[in-house]
Amino acid sequence: MQNTQQSSSLNPCILVIFGATGDLAGRKLYPALYNLAQDQLLPECFAVVAVGRKAKSNQDAQADIIESIKAFSRTEYTGSDEDLEFLKCFHYFQLDFYDSAGYAGLKKLLDGIDQQCQTEGNRVFFLAVAPEHFAPIALELKAHGMAHNQGSWQRVVIEKPFGHDLESAQKLNSVIRSTFAEEQIYRIDHYLGKEMVQNLMVLRFANTLFEPVWNNKYIDHVQITFAETVGVEGRGAYYEKAGALRDMVQNHMLQLLTLIAMEPPVDLATESIRDEKVKVLRSLKVNPENVVRGQYGPGVVDAQQVVAYNQEQRVAPDTNVETFVALKTYVENFRWAGVPFYMRTGKRMPKKYSEIVISFKKLPGVLYFRDEQLDPNLLVIRVQPDAGIFFKFNAKKPGTEHSIVPVSMDFSESSLAGFNTPEAYERLLFDVMRGESALFTRWDEVQYAWQFIDQIARHWHAANAPAVVYPAGSFGQAQADYLIRSDGREWHEY
Amino acid sequence: MQNTQQSSSLNPCILVIFGATGDLAGRKLYPALYNLAQDQLLPECFAVVAVGRKAKSNQDAQADIIESIKAFSRTEYTGSDEDLEFLKCFHYFQLDFYDSAGYAGLKKLLDGIDQQCQTEGNRVFFLAVAPEHFAPIALELKAHGMAHNQGSWQRVVIEKPFGHDLESAQKLNSVIRSTFAEEQIYRIDHYLGKEMVQNLMVLRFANTLFEPVWNNKYIDHVQITFAETVGVEGRGAYYEKAGALRDMVQNHMLQLLTLIAMEPPVDLATESIRDEKVKVLRSLKVNPENVVRGQYGPGVVDAQQVVAYNQEQRVAPDTNVETFVALKTYVENFRWAGVPFYMRTGKRMPKKYSEIVISFKKLPGVLYFRDEQLDPNLLVIRVQPDAGIFFKFNAKKPGTEHSIVPVSMDFSESSLAGFNTPEAYERLLFDVMRGESALFTRWDEVQYAWQFIDQIARHWHAANAPAVVYPAGSFGQAQADYLIRSDGREWHEY
Repeated sequence: MQNTQQSSSLNPCILVIFGATGDLAGRKLYPALYNLAQDQLLPECFAVVAVGRKAKSNQDAQADIIESIKAFSRTEYTGSDEDLEFLKCFHYFQLDFYDSAGYAGLKKLLDGIDQQCQTEGNRVFFLAVAPEHFAPIALELKAHGMAHNQGSWQRVVIEKPFGHDLESAQKLNSVIRSTFAEEQIYRIDHYLGKEMVQNLMVLRFANTLFEPVWNNKYIDHVQITFAETVGVEGRGAYYEKAGALRDMVQNHMLQLLTLIAMEPPVDLATESIRDEKVKVLRSLKVNPENVVRGQYGPGVVDAQQVVAYNQEQRVAPDTNVETFVALKTYVENFRWAGVPFYMRTGKRMPKKYSEIVISFKKLPGVLYFRDEQLDPNLLVIRVQPDAGIFFKFNAKKPGTEHSIVPVSMDFSESSLAGFNTPEAYERLLFDVMRGESALFTRWDEVQYAWQFIDQIARHWHAANAPAVVYPAGSFGQAQADYLIRSDGREWHEY
Repeated sequence: MQNTQQSSSLNPCILVIFGATGDLAGRKLYPALYNLAQDQLLPECFAVVAVGRKAKSNQDAQADIIESIKAFSRTEYTGSDEDLEFLKCFHYFQLDFYDSAGYAGLKKLLDGIDQQCQTEGNRVFFLAVAPEHFAPIALELKAHGMAHNQGSWQRVVIEKPFGHDLESAQKLNSVIRSTFAEEQIYRIDHYLGKEMVQNLMVLRFANTLFEPVWNNKYIDHVQITFAETVGVEGRGAYYEKAGALRDMVQNHMLQLLTLIAMEPPVDLATESIRDEKVKVLRSLKVNPENVVRGQYGPGVVDAQQVVAYNQEQRVAPDTNVETFVALKTYVENFRWAGVPFYMRTGKRMPKKYSEIVISFKKLPGVLYFRDEQLDPNLLVIRVQPDAGIFFKFNAKKPGTEHSIVPVSMDFSESSLAGFNTPEAYERLLFDVMRGESALFTRWDEVQYAWQFIDQIARHWHAANAPAVVYPAGSFGQAQADYLIRSDGREWHEY
């Protein structure tokens, strides 16, 4: 592909991680950097500045990074000479994000590293911090001349959530855009870094068998399920302000929907792809009556007794926040008119998986469909835990009796020999460093996604819609089943 | 399915096997009967009369049958009470097929068994004999009142070859038809009993994903390969009169082609299906220049040195008979115009397999197809040795580089748990007994197939076309590759 790039062709740069002692850095970023180093996918001239509020020596920070890698990396930390070389790239810098003076010190450190490591002024600022810090940090970076630097590039990576509704997102965006240009901004949606999600466009547009049937003539409906077994864990305070609709649907699920539904882009350039994704978001129609919200009660998950959402830490006992959403929406364009897209996501479900199910229409009621109910063809795209695809179809049951049974063909990513799937963050960090932003979301994608979400949230607010309790360890409350069953369909639970 | 039938609903009958001491009976028919008995798919009132030219007691014949079962059955012979019960059904009858008086004795035996076993006059006459005996036996059966018997049914099963050209087939047919009506005649093509062949219609007409792309808009070409590793074995005398064109293409390969290419029938009734198959045969066009014939020379197969065809027993040293054919043909109708069907079959190939490859057209030269050559999508239907289907498609190669690789999804019949595939002859014998003739060929199918073959044979004859020697252990001579490569395609060798 035209995007194929070797590490040697990557520009030198410094990766500045804000929130260096946080969860995301420890679980995802350090292991991802380690694996990129293993695969020789880091720039030759490269450094990391880990910025955190705590006081810490470089040595202590490096020890923490080794712990992260040991705990979360897909390849084992060996302590080899290369590993020690890799650790030498890391510098720790203590900073209170609201102490303007401190940023002068940061700039001095970065400029010094430029001298020492030939990093040429290029910067990736990764804001792995709580969302309320995005704007203040961006403003300080600009104030201290770090957002733009003649003859070099600066990029800023922003984690979700990007606002909590359209208005707040617009406000955040206008601050960030006052410091960075749109093409400098990388709004991360880590689902887009997952292998099967990256694969969606290839599947659709590099295979003759799928594109001809990828429309309302042959597809009956689409299902997208993101099920988690965990509860809110330590994130009660954040979750009380978000809920499943904002936390999962606004970003990950709508992004997947756009990749399933988009028209073929003019070419593979980032903006061409984003243009098509935006067209899908603009075509989305939802009747808020077709959105179900739920909240987990106590129950059993993975054979463990777990508490109700309203008993979790930093959650109000009388909370009405949803931990589960199921909805039906339509992409009202020529390709998809009449094809419902059912989506559901929840915490404390019976199993953890994310998958897309393309359910094909049944054939006419002749021949094999005259006397019996046969299963529809299903194309199932598993995003996690086991990335792969399977196709469920009908075949003759072997034997002298003539009966038809559903069978399936499978493709598992793990079947590709000699290969260990990179984590989403590896791909995303690599892309930021090489200036490839196709797997990041453009402002108008965020904007239209919030418009979609806001109309549901407004309806809930106006209707005082309760988040109906479902037992932890179930697939949400009965209304979610009713939503799809009343259309004569059912959720696919593989 | 409407065809589902229990053994209890089968009419009583006597199966009369002519050629009881021959290869087919020993390797296929006795083991098939044994397995039908195991699966309780024989009529409750049932007997077998094994007719052979050799003198043999019932006991000796039964001992031979046990040997057959032990050697060739898919389930093990146990000698249980049920097995002994099964053997009691077998009667041996010595007969010189040309001794008219002998048939009176046969009739008497059958009538006697009717009394003893309540077989009610119903008969299946299975002619497992050399083709020159078909007509004489049929005439004697008629002469002795065994072809028709008021209030009961009689069926005759005829093995290939049904003639060696159109004229001889017509002659044979007119004799047989003077003794049996068309609906009494079961012309066997054992390939039609194979699981994946029976599956072809189900695949096509019970799945939404295949039928919409099953035409010249999406399919680039079709390949049918029947490769054998064996030579002519003991069948030199027969083969010298047949050759690969008559031995494989006229029946098995054209039958498969009709099942791949046929239009959906009006219903699943036998005659509706046959009507559609005949339409395909009538639409077949071949330019005899596009037919390649070869003959194996000496070589190595399965690590064994083997002799040339012209060194085999009962083969003329200067023989010009083909042991290999490759050809390109077209089904000139609205669905298939412009789609070549490539077929090849040969003896002494490097491996033994039969498969159908549906090769899809490439997508337009945009997006992923702009800068690189991607593989076409292939749907491969494996008939033997391992019945199954696989679909080869393009996916993103996992990793941070963006490259596309061919991957595949697999479905193997053997994956269906708790299950041991019946042999073709089990299905076929069962179908004869219940009067279901969809898996047998109607006269007009035979007729049009011979018309197709004859035009090629006539051309060879007129052009004095040599059977070009290829080394045993290869996929035929260079011309076969040229035939497909000159169209910018190549044989798929999985």
